[in-house]
This record gives sequence, C-alpha cells and structure tokens, in this order.
Amino acid sequence: MPSSFKVELSRDRCEVRVGAGLLNNCGALARQSGVEPTRCAIVTDANVAPRYLSAATDSLRAAGFDPVGVEIDPGELSKSLGTVGEIFDRLVQHELDRKSSIFALGGGVVGDIAGLVASTFMRGITLVQIPTTLVGQVDSALGGKNGVNHRDAKNLIGTFYQPRLVIADISTLATLPEREFREGLAEVIKYAAILEARMVDDLEREMPAIIARGPQALEAIVTRSLRHKADVIEHDEREHGRRALLNFGHTIGHALESSSGYGTLLHGEAVSIGMRAAARLSCQLTGLPSDQERRLLKLLRIAGLPVEMPEDWHNEHFIRALRLDKKRSDGGINFILLSEIGRPLIRRLELDQILGGLR
Amino acid sequence: MPSSFKVELSRDRCEVRVGAGLLNNCGALARQSGVEPTRCAIVTDANVAPRYLSAATDSLRAAGFDPVGVEIDPGELSKSLGTVGEIFDRLVQHELDRKSSIFALGGGVVGDIAGLVASTFMRGITLVQIPTTLVGQVDSALGGKNGVNHRDAKNLIGTFYQPRLVIADISTLATLPEREFREGLAEVIKYAAILEARMVDDLEREMPAIIARGPQALEAIVTRSLRHKADVIEHDEREHGRRALLNFGHTIGHALESSSGYGTLLHGEAVSIGMRAAARLSCQLTGLPSDQERRLLKLLRIAGLPVEMPEDWHNEHFIRALRLDKKRSDGGINFILLSEIGRPLIRRLELDQILGGLR
Repeated sequence: MPSSFKVELSRDRCEVRVGAGLLNNCGALARQSGVEPTRCAIVTDANVAPRYLSAATDSLRAAGFDPVGVEIDPGELSKSLGTVGEIFDRLVQHELDRKSSIFALGGGVVGDIAGLVASTFMRGITLVQIPTTLVGQVDSALGGKNGVNHRDAKNLIGTFYQPRLVIADISTLATLPEREFREGLAEVIKYAAILEARMVDDLEREMPAIIARGPQALEAIVTRSLRHKADVIEHDEREHGRRALLNFGHTIGHALESSSGYGTLLHGEAVSIGMRAAARLSCQLTGLPSDQERRLLKLLRIAGLPVEMPEDWHNEHFIRALRLDKKRSDGGINFILLSEIGRPLIRRLELDQILGGLR
Repeated sequence: MPSSFKVELSRDRCEVRVGAGLLNNCGALARQSGVEPTRCAIVTDANVAPRYLSAATDSLRAAGFDPVGVEIDPGELSKSLGTVGEIFDRLVQHELDRKSSIFALGGGVVGDIAGLVASTFMRGITLVQIPTTLVGQVDSALGGKNGVNHRDAKNLIGTFYQPRLVIADISTLATLPEREFREGLAEVIKYAAILEARMVDDLEREMPAIIARGPQALEAIVTRSLRHKADVIEHDEREHGRRALLNFGHTIGHALESSSGYGTLLHGEAVSIGMRAAARLSCQLTGLPSDQERRLLKLLRIAGLPVEMPEDWHNEHFIRALRLDKKRSDGGINFILLSEIGRPLIRRLELDQILGGLR
C-alpha cells in the first residue's frame, strides 16, 4: 500500500508519498496536495526524460495542469548558475507565473537545480519533487536543501526551500543501474546507524530482498528512511543542531570525493567508506562496542558498498579538504561519532586524531 | 532619540533601528542584534562607497568584524544574475563562510541584490540592511523582498529573505538629491493613505519640516513608516493577503514606469501619479469622499510629487502592462482602492473600468 504522511516545518508543510506506480498518478496527487492546476514546468534531464517525461506529462494534463518539459544535461556539470539562468529563460518563454509550479523529475542533480529555480523564480513558486533514484527517494528530495556549484565550491549557491510534495515512485528504482542503486543504500544504512538500532536488525534480515528490489521491501525501506529524515528536519530545518547528525560518514566521505576526483567514487560509496571510518573512530574515542562496529561493516558489505579507504587516500587533496572543514568550524572538525548504534554524538576532533584513526 | 523595535516573522526576527548617525555605530548595533563578528562583506555601489564605505568599515572593524567592500555599478542595470555571480566570486575570493554576514549599504538596487546574494550564499547567511535613501529607509529595506531582473521581466529572480537588522541612519538623507528624496515621500504618503488617517493630518502639518529634512521630522516619519510596514508584513510576510495593500498606487505606477521607459519617471513619482489615479477611481467606485481625495492630492503636491498622468499615457505599452497584470491575476486586475482614508480594499477591476477612470 502506498503510504502517506505530513511533515510540519516552521513555515511550510511538505507532504510525502511513497509507493509503486505513483508517477502515473502524479497529477492527481499534486492536486490532492493543493498544487494549483496551472501552467507548470517539469524539470528533468536527458537520461530521465525518455523514460518518464511522457508519463508525468500525461498525468499532469489529465489532472488539469498545463505542463512543459525543461530538459537539462545530465550530471554534476549542469549544477551551475548558467543552467539556472537557462531554465529561467525557458520559464519566461513559457510564461510561467507566480501560481505556476515546478516538478523536479530525476535524481539529485535535477532536484538540486529545480529546487533552487523554484525558490528564486518570482520569489518562490510551488515545488514538487519526484525523485527517480534511491538517493533522491531516501534522502535528497526531502528536506529543502538545494544548490548549484561555484567554480571553487560545491553547492555554494543555494537555499533552504521545502517542496510541497515529495512523490517517491519506487517503480522507477527497477531500472536504476546497480551501482547507483547500491549507493542509495549507504544513506539507508546511515539512518539505521545514527537513529534506530532496530532498523539495523531489520536491514540485516531484509537486505537480500532490498537488493533484489522487491517492491514491498523497497517501499518499506524508502518510507522508513523518509520518516527518519522528516523527524530530523522537523526539529531542525536549517541545520543549526540535530540535522548535522545526518552528516555521519560525510566528513571523510566529502574529503574522499573531492580528493579522488568527482566521479571516481559515487557520493554514497564515499559515504560508506566514511561511515566505516567513523565507526572505527567511534570504537577508539566514544566507546562504540566492537561487535556493533562489525555489524555496520558487514551491513555495508552486504549492500555491496566499498568500505576500505582507497590506497592513496593520504594525499594533499584529502588533507586540504579536511582542513577546509576545520576552518569552517573555527579550528576543530565537528565529527559525528556513535557511542552505540542509534546513539550519535558530535565531537570536535583535531585533524591528527582523524588521520591517526584512519591509518 | 534613536528608536528600536522588533518585528516578529514566522521564522525569523528582524530588528529595526532608526536615528541620526547610526552608520558610525553599525558594528556595535550588529553585535547587539546577535550578528557574529567574523569576516563580512559590505555590498555597496560606486556612488555610495566614497561617502559611507569607510565609516561602515571602521565601525565594523572596531566591533571586531573583518569587513571587505564589494562595489557594484550603480543603477538598475546592475540588477542581473551576472552581477550576482560576480559578487559570489568576490565572496569566495575573500573566503566568506556560513558564519559570515552581508551588509547592504546603499539604495534599493544595492539592497535588492545584496539580499538575494545573502539568501543564496551557502543557503543563506546573515543580512543587515543599511539603506541610505528615503525609499530604502521607509520601505524596501524592511520586508525581505529582494531580486534581480530578467531580460524580460523586472525582479523575476528573487527570494523572500528577512534581514536580521535594518539600520536607518537618517543622517544619510541629508545629501540625497532632491528628486530622490521626494520620491521617498510617495511611500510615506501611501502608508498614511491606506493605514492611518491621523498620519495624513500629521503629514499636512509636518511636511514643511520633512522637506527641510529636519532630523526630528525625518526620524519620526521614517520610524512611523517602518512601523506600519512591519505591522503589515508580520501578518503577511509572503503577500498572500494584507501585504498586497501596500501596492496602493502601484498598479498604475508600474504601468507608467514600464510604458514611459525606465528612468523617465522615478518609481516614487510613478506611484504618486498612481495614487492620485487610484484616489479618483475610489471616488467613482468605492465612495471615497471627494474632500478626502483632495486632501491626498494636496499632500502629494506639497511633497513636490507629480500627480498628473503624462500626456501620452494612453499608449500600447501602458495597456500591455495592465493586460499583463490582468493575466497574472486570472482575468481581472486586483486594484487597491479606498473607501475612506485609512480604509483600503481590494477590488477586481476590468481594464476598461480603469482606463475609463483615468480619462
């Protein structure tokens, strides 16, 4: 059964829907969430469009919307102010106005760009996220973070802007390339590690069905992940506190991503290695029992994720990335550790402590 | 005495300070409002910088900030995504981060651009508005609207983003060119017309002192205007209802601005003509007593503002601008009228009703 719940934010309300085949019904779902059936834009990329654009268009038309497709090039390089400008041109050309809405149909890149466009077009128009990747469905489509890259910094330009509705159609996961599917599992395991010990038990049991992409298993795991994320952002939309816990595995992960050249490791893969490293540091520094560390490690392996630091990890780019992190937080690195599974804490670590723990 | 009050918004709190000589104390005032004394950028333009940039810089340094000046070209042409990109480059170059802040020092253009930059740099950093024009001080610096222009549409790209602090240093009004000063009075008279009949009495009495730019008169009128604006936006930050009342005079005003070529009429001058026209329509349609219409007309004239429609107003550009307005609101033009001074109402008018009333 499709599940449905509401997320209350300080100013905005975001509705979440998870289920198989929802894309074919996205127009009616949008109407039910109060999106006005007017001219709207479906922002998508050249990979996703051939697969899903016509289904989204048909469903929106049937519900009374007047959709236009706006395609961008796939990939991280599209996350630029230039692409944002091009999308604005298209929106003006198609005469979108204050009452129009933006549907983001695709993975994280599409969601990030479309979110920024929706938040800045005429000071903000309605946004609906329709993530078609596992990372998008369990993580990035919910929470309101968006952004594009500056030449010198990832996601430098962005806003916090909540979608009115997130539609996670788990049917779209069936055709996802294996590596992209598995990277999404890193974020799923992350929720379990930091927020719910029982979810680790369940993942140990369910992982074969998840990897086989059984619809029931997928629906359950996407829903459970999104509920965790919703709970966190309801308490801390702007990442002043608790939301930072979601960065478990991400400090090392980001440093690996930027030092190994974007694309060598997928984001989720880097996070997996980062979580494993954070678990080891947690054993050393905050008393995570070693059997719990081993359970997390095993789960990441079963999910088919990399867990070992790359052989050449200890290079100047990696150190520079961590130093930048340190500088940003005034001289120490705010690192997410565990005292046990489901009990995260933020520790201010020195660079040498981290490097020492990684050797 | 400088006055100080708080504006409670749905998510954010904005502090407002009005007084003579406050610019020289802007660093300490920012500290008092909780702005962290770190690296910050003072966004200003080439007209304002020679006059006030060093005072702002000195005051911020004295309070422990580390300010860098970012100058843009003066004028409406700077309101582009290109300028925003250039400012991002400067912020990156100067290594601003999440804890940094932006001080907007100048008129409406500077405030609009700096506000958008602050709202989108690393998903939003602290913004302080230091308006140096009367329009900025009584209106645009407070309320969180920002934006830049698209080739085809004014203010198409922008957000709602509240400043932490607005510092209205009325000393900066002393050197304002006469025409720019008087255009600010249009917005002052607007608050009186739509929100407070007694303010019309007071303006009739005080206008000579205001025009002579007596510090006490200016401080009183800026404070009173900002309190009115604060009251409106506290109830309707995103302009879903009551905030639209602030558009009194602006429907005709905007159409005049866009049909007479930007720059021929200053914004406040166009609004003045628009308010006079709206008052006449109010007599015809909503029973505004004609003696009240005459009082508003007289007040606009004493303020030195134009009130007559330009001779060539009835041209295709003017009609097109109104038609665009009509299209935006689904077939009628939402027009702000008065039933009496201080009692505004929103009426849906047909294009011909408006044109007929203007003849």
